[in-house]
Amino acid sequence: MSPLALDPAAQDLLFREARTANSFTDEPVTDEQIQAIHDLVKWAPTAFNQQPLRVVLVRSPEARERLAPLMADGNRAKTVSAPVIAILAADYEFHEELPAQFPAVPQVKDMFFSERPVREASATLNGTLQAAYFLIGVRAAGLAAGPMTGYDADGVQKEFLDADHRPIAIVNIGHPAEDAYRPRSPRMSFEDVYQTV
Amino acid sequence: MSPLALDPAAQDLLFREARTANSFTDEPVTDEQIQAIHDLVKWAPTAFNQQPLRVVLVRSPEARERLAPLMADGNRAKTVSAPVIAILAADYEFHEELPAQFPAVPQVKDMFFSERPVREASATLNGTLQAAYFLIGVRAAGLAAGPMTGYDADGVQKEFLDADHRPIAIVNIGHPAEDAYRPRSPRMSFEDVYQTV
Repeated sequence: MSPLALDPAAQDLLFREARTANSFTDEPVTDEQIQAIHDLVKWAPTAFNQQPLRVVLVRSPEARERLAPLMADGNRAKTVSAPVIAILAADYEFHEELPAQFPAVPQVKDMFFSERPVREASATLNGTLQAAYFLIGVRAAGLAAGPMTGYDADGVQKEFLDADHRPIAIVNIGHPAEDAYRPRSPRMSFEDVYQTV
Repeated sequence: MSPLALDPAAQDLLFREARTANSFTDEPVTDEQIQAIHDLVKWAPTAFNQQPLRVVLVRSPEARERLAPLMADGNRAKTVSAPVIAILAADYEFHEELPAQFPAVPQVKDMFFSERPVREASATLNGTLQAAYFLIGVRAAGLAAGPMTGYDADGVQKEFLDADHRPIAIVNIGHPAEDAYRPRSPRMSFEDVYQTV
C-alpha cells in the first residue's frame, strides 16, 4: 500500500508527469483559470498568514514588448510564445495588511515588522513559498508552467513594479506545444538529502 | 464546470481542508512516509534543476532536547509534541552537484555559481521553493504540517548544521490532535493580488 493519501492521478498531474514547458500552443489561458488557481492555493500556509505575493499578468502586445528585452537570451523566445506571463513579486509593505490577515494577534505588525529589512526578508521567504504554491496551482489547472529566474530583476522592477515590490520569478503559462519538454534531469536520493538525529 | 483539472478531493487534501497543526497525537510518522514524500515532490521545478534543500529529521529525545531551547517561546510546546520535526536548510555549496543534476549544460556550475553570495541567494530562493513543495508533500501523505519561522536560526545552524547550511524553516509533522487547529484567517482576494497589463 502506498504511504501517500493523495491519489495517483493527482500525484502524476502535480509532480510526476508535470514538466517545465519551454514552448506553448496558441490556446488561451483565461482569467477564470488564473482566478481558480488563486482561490485554491491561497489556503496554503505562510508565517503569521502574511500574503506578500503580488502578481502582474502580462497579456497585451505592448506589455510583452516591454518585457522581452528584460529576459535572459535563453528565455526570451519562450516568454514571447506564452499565452500569459506572470511576474511574481514580493510586497515589502505587506505588513499593512497583517492586522486583517492575522486577527488573532493584530499587534504582530508592530511587534515583528516595523523595520524594513525584516519585512524584506520575510516577504522574500513567504512570497517564495507562495510562488511555489502558485506553480503547483498552475499544474492543478491542467496548465503547463515555465518558471524562470533569468531576467533583469532591476529592469523588471522598474518597468512593471515599484520600489516596494521586488520580482521573485517570472512564469510562462499555457498549454505545452509538441516540443515543449526537455529530457528530465536526475533528482537527489532520499539518502543524500535527509539525515536523522 | 470547474476550471481546475485536479479532482476536488485532492484539492481539499492539499489546500482547502489541510491546516497548520499546533498539536499532535502520539501516532508515529515513519521513514517510509517521509521517503514517499521526497520521492513525490522531488520532481517539482527549480532553476537549472538545482536541489539545495537538505533536511534534518529530529526524532531522538536527545536531539529534541537540543532543539527545544532554540525555538521561540510560542513554538516550543508544539515542537516537543510532534512525532518528528524537520529542519529544512539551504546548502550553499549545492553547485558541486549541478553538473550531475543539469547534464544538458554542465558548465552552468562555473558560469553562474562560482561566487558564494550568488550561491547563497540561489540556494535560498530554490531551497524555499523546495520547502513549499515539501509542505504540500506532507499533506499529500495525509499528515499535518506545522511550519515555523520562529526560532534562533544561528543557534539551529550551529547545533544541527554547519557553516554551509542555513535553516529555512522548521516543520512539525504528525497526525493532528483534537485541538490542533486555530480558526482560519482571511485570505486576500484575486483582485487585491493580481493586475493585468
